[in-house]
Amino acid sequence: MNFCSHCGGPVVLQVPEDDERPRHVCPSCGTIHYQNPKLVVGCIPVWEDRILMCRRNIEPRKGYWTLPAGFLENGETAAAGARRETLEETASTVTDLEPYLMVDIVHIHQIYLMFRSRLLAPDFHPTRESSEVKLLGEADIPWNDIAFKVVEKTLRHYLQDRPSGRFVFRTDKIDNRRLIGS
Amino acid sequence: MNFCSHCGGPVVLQVPEDDERPRHVCPSCGTIHYQNPKLVVGCIPVWEDRILMCRRNIEPRKGYWTLPAGFLENGETAAAGARRETLEETASTVTDLEPYLMVDIVHIHQIYLMFRSRLLAPDFHPTRESSEVKLLGEADIPWNDIAFKVVEKTLRHYLQDRPSGRFVFRTDKIDNRRLIGS
Ligand SMILES: [Zn+2]
Ligand SMILES: [Zn+2]
Repeated sequence: MNFCSHCGGPVVLQVPEDDERPRHVCPSCGTIHYQNPKLVVGCIPVWEDRILMCRRNIEPRKGYWTLPAGFLENGETAAAGARRETLEETASTVTDLEPYLMVDIVHIHQIYLMFRSRLLAPDFHPTRESSEVKLLGEADIPWNDIAFKVVEKTLRHYLQDRPSGRFVFRTDKIDNRRLIGS
Repeated sequence: MNFCSHCGGPVVLQVPEDDERPRHVCPSCGTIHYQNPKLVVGCIPVWEDRILMCRRNIEPRKGYWTLPAGFLENGETAAAGARRETLEETASTVTDLEPYLMVDIVHIHQIYLMFRSRLLAPDFHPTRESSEVKLLGEADIPWNDIAFKVVEKTLRHYLQDRPSGRFVFRTDKIDNRRLIGS
């Protein structure tokens, strides 16, 4: 951030009064520009004993497999955002959304919230964002070609809980900050 | 948003290619400025059968009672943010944080994530942000002077679950958009 989005003047990095963190502050108009983590919402769409996965047709990680997920938009609930992303990426409709897993991805300022869900019908097809969309049994999951670690974590938690039928809300964390510094 | 935070040029509101929503776009440098909901993290700090509440010493809703909560910061997990807010507002330390309630506050673009938690010790005092900090039994909760509806909802869910000792993760929603339009 270089300029104030309110008045267009240059911003400076400083700790505001009664604050403890450096913020982008505008000396011209006084606006403090806070930057906060973003919420990514997504689904595990299930039909019978199979999971709907999609192959990314866009960067990053084009060509790798993922679960439908994306940034929550202003004006929608987290569940509505997860349904929208599933529709956009797989052209399918999910129902019975239950919050299942929250993953803090600390180093990129993202919080993932993944819902369990049920496909209304086994209707789906490739989209602009997904070159392939497939229902996969546990044995067919392409573990070596998963797009993101958070997706792998979600699938592993889900498959671990599934035999018992008891899906308790879980939290998990990914933090690569030490790796970057080393 | 009037100006591009990257190059300082004026932004325009338009729907980018492959998007469906109007965004603030910079014609000079091409940056698309997305705006997304913010995550507010907080605690129900418990000591024996009492709940730690604080009276707001800052606007909005100065003078009203609340549970410790605030915006999640970049670089912290949701639980770490809830612990930090509790320390800042009540000067107390909480442990054993368990995610308990997520509330979508659709019209103000906020998602609240409230944790159950336990005070390490009954040590707390007023802070810059709180004019009073008190452990309150169920009968003492000032229902008519609660700062925010989300805090009332959190307390009601918690007190409803407490007799059974079974605290399942819950979701709830506050959406005043229709009221504003009417
Ligand atoms: Zn300014
Ligand atoms: Zn620009």
